[in-house]
Amino acid sequence: MRMVDIIEKKRDGLTLTQEEIKFWIEGVTNNTIPEYQTSALLMAIVLKGMNVEETTVLTEAMLHSGDIIDLTAIAGKKVDKHSTGGVGDKTTIILSPLVAAAGAKVAKMSGRGLGHTGGTLDKLEAIPGYNISLTSDAFIKQVNDINVAVVGQTGNLVYADKVLYSLRDVTGTVNALPLIASSIMSKKLAGGADCILLDVKYGEGAFMKTVEDARQLAETMIQIGQNLGREVNAMLTNMNQPLGNAIGNALEVREAVETLKNNCPKDLEELCLVAAGYMLFQAQFVDSPEKGYDMALETLRSGKAYEVFLSWIAAQGGDISVFEDLDTFTHATNSKEVVANKEGYLHDLKAMELGLVSMHLGAGRQTKEDTIDYKAGIMLSQEVGNRIKVGDVLATLYSDQEILESHVQDAVACFEINNDTIEKPELIAAIL
Amino acid sequence: MRMVDIIEKKRDGLTLTQEEIKFWIEGVTNNTIPEYQTSALLMAIVLKGMNVEETTVLTEAMLHSGDIIDLTAIAGKKVDKHSTGGVGDKTTIILSPLVAAAGAKVAKMSGRGLGHTGGTLDKLEAIPGYNISLTSDAFIKQVNDINVAVVGQTGNLVYADKVLYSLRDVTGTVNALPLIASSIMSKKLAGGADCILLDVKYGEGAFMKTVEDARQLAETMIQIGQNLGREVNAMLTNMNQPLGNAIGNALEVREAVETLKNNCPKDLEELCLVAAGYMLFQAQFVDSPEKGYDMALETLRSGKAYEVFLSWIAAQGGDISVFEDLDTFTHATNSKEVVANKEGYLHDLKAMELGLVSMHLGAGRQTKEDTIDYKAGIMLSQEVGNRIKVGDVLATLYSDQEILESHVQDAVACFEINNDTIEKPELIAAIL
Repeated sequence: MRMVDIIEKKRDGLTLTQEEIKFWIEGVTNNTIPEYQTSALLMAIVLKGMNVEETTVLTEAMLHSGDIIDLTAIAGKKVDKHSTGGVGDKTTIILSPLVAAAGAKVAKMSGRGLGHTGGTLDKLEAIPGYNISLTSDAFIKQVNDINVAVVGQTGNLVYADKVLYSLRDVTGTVNALPLIASSIMSKKLAGGADCILLDVKYGEGAFMKTVEDARQLAETMIQIGQNLGREVNAMLTNMNQPLGNAIGNALEVREAVETLKNNCPKDLEELCLVAAGYMLFQAQFVDSPEKGYDMALETLRSGKAYEVFLSWIAAQGGDISVFEDLDTFTHATNSKEVVANKEGYLHDLKAMELGLVSMHLGAGRQTKEDTIDYKAGIMLSQEVGNRIKVGDVLATLYSDQEILESHVQDAVACFEINNDTIEKPELIAAIL
Repeated sequence: MRMVDIIEKKRDGLTLTQEEIKFWIEGVTNNTIPEYQTSALLMAIVLKGMNVEETTVLTEAMLHSGDIIDLTAIAGKKVDKHSTGGVGDKTTIILSPLVAAAGAKVAKMSGRGLGHTGGTLDKLEAIPGYNISLTSDAFIKQVNDINVAVVGQTGNLVYADKVLYSLRDVTGTVNALPLIASSIMSKKLAGGADCILLDVKYGEGAFMKTVEDARQLAETMIQIGQNLGREVNAMLTNMNQPLGNAIGNALEVREAVETLKNNCPKDLEELCLVAAGYMLFQAQFVDSPEKGYDMALETLRSGKAYEVFLSWIAAQGGDISVFEDLDTFTHATNSKEVVANKEGYLHDLKAMELGLVSMHLGAGRQTKEDTIDYKAGIMLSQEVGNRIKVGDVLATLYSDQEILESHVQDAVACFEINNDTIEKPELIAAIL
């Protein structure tokens, strides 16, 4: 088999066989196929596509390019959840104890953030003492004991994805459905969960610009999961504004804690309950997502979810006393209000740009080597649909470093205000 | 400027600017752009195309990536001719003395062959003593003295093409009109001629499968040439059978000599006269290609073209006494006849496959390191349209090595015979 023949076949819009896709990914993994051939094939895939069968084979080949986590020592169905990348997305911190409190097993590996989206690990590390590195035995024991553990990635999962991703990033081949779907699904499958709930974001700041594109990606990933024997569902959610009001690490942990204490923005709570309902349904605790929703609501309202949250954080070494005084927990040296300079209705809250402002305040990393200021971030005071008057506070910026006027100006520019009234957009467009 | 932005622009089907194309080719030349980015852009160009303006800019950028031959020390218009690669194409050896005898200046650099097509240099080196390496001064003096010199490539012409071509070969990106056109034209322009006649082949064995594709390539190259201030014409010629009857080095030289002695297949003579007519017209020796044809015919029939041929070969050290006994010149140790095993009409003579048989007999190189058996090759006895009976000789194979039965079988398979009558195909479909 010759790589050039595989490239030419895809260039001509033909379907690759299982053997051809495996040959490619094994060559990428063993470093026997040069990068210039892989990048040519990636571009051909971007422009000619791959059908669901090819994408499934690609996912499986990538899955086997590294370690696969074995969670069979944990009794019962293991549930996992993946978001395609949202600004202010703290749902993992809320959802994990929510479904764990209802009995589901959450054995989750999470990642750090780079660029405009923060990672769940970074958020959890805003809690003093939180340990993201458990041994495999300790990880499994904790999930068996209290149903939940969230750690950093262990082992060498999906090696081929690391090679492909670094190449895609510099060759204009990031944005292709089969490549996005196989990258996400191979990592989720390597993580060992039985049930996966996907949160596919759409909107200006997301990979998928429209709900139709998001639906196509979601359908492909569901099909891949089913082909490979997993329960997969997907929510299509709007990223035209950040999720909840908090952007930043300690600020987002605080908003998660407040949600678990039944004191949070309704949108965020609703998203978490719907998601938890599906995850409980996938794990067969209930016979419909609606009953799952009710079950999740009960664990939330009763305070049981918050109790599990505290047990989880404490089990991983986190200092839970910080949650007794949330103002101190999130107190930053400097803060500055962002004030409206025009009146009208708030039409759009540019999530990606707000993520970048938050990063510049210190909440995120521009390069892998940057350190994070856990207190830095943004609290939003307005949401899409609100009537705004000149002088109204739109948001507050927090940082331990000096907050420049340019940060404020960049933040103001994220709020698109005009005279037309606008209905509050739906957060969840569909669940598949 | 970032290479990834240029790749994404072409991926999205947009037109690249002059600055972007220059940035790329300068980066290729200076080795500052990695091959994986170039191969991704090449694939995007294959699938999204380039317009004539982009292709002109690409050609010019490539032209300036290496040395450019200065022929201004040769008085008058310098004519050149390029074929896109034909099996049995010995036209350079005939045409050069033909137009030189009429007064045009032929200062030509030629190449070696690889794979199914032999190179003009290899053919000329079948003549004992022929020297392909002249100093620049000797080259220019010879053209000033006798109007013609054909040498190997000197200097480092079109460096970027060497890099791109080796990458295209292994990334499925050879076959794209803008890449083919810019590769050919940058080399021709770097060669320093004022007038260029292109022979664009079409047919099964050619890059361009149909006459329409060949026309499009030709039109693009003509436009590039005009944009860059040269006289360019193009013939579209049929490569569904080899040109003339001889394939192989000494055999082709012999056929060229016989043509110049007015004793050759009419098709080959006609093609050479038409081409010479256009070249003389381009060089302004005549005011129409038809008058150029007549002038070329006169130099051929009078024997003047053959005289110039002998002067040329002798000037470059070739032993012209070998042409006194052509049977000895082409005598190979072994020969075998290829005989028809069915009857009917000859519909197709697979030129590329015949080229490969000839290569396996020793006439060509599979790898750059292979040495050539100058006597090896094939003499065809039939042409498309002929009525064939079982037992008729189709061709004769020649080699100094043993001729295997498999070579004969491979050769028989190149002759497509069936019961339908067929008209002799036109050799020249159009001249642009």
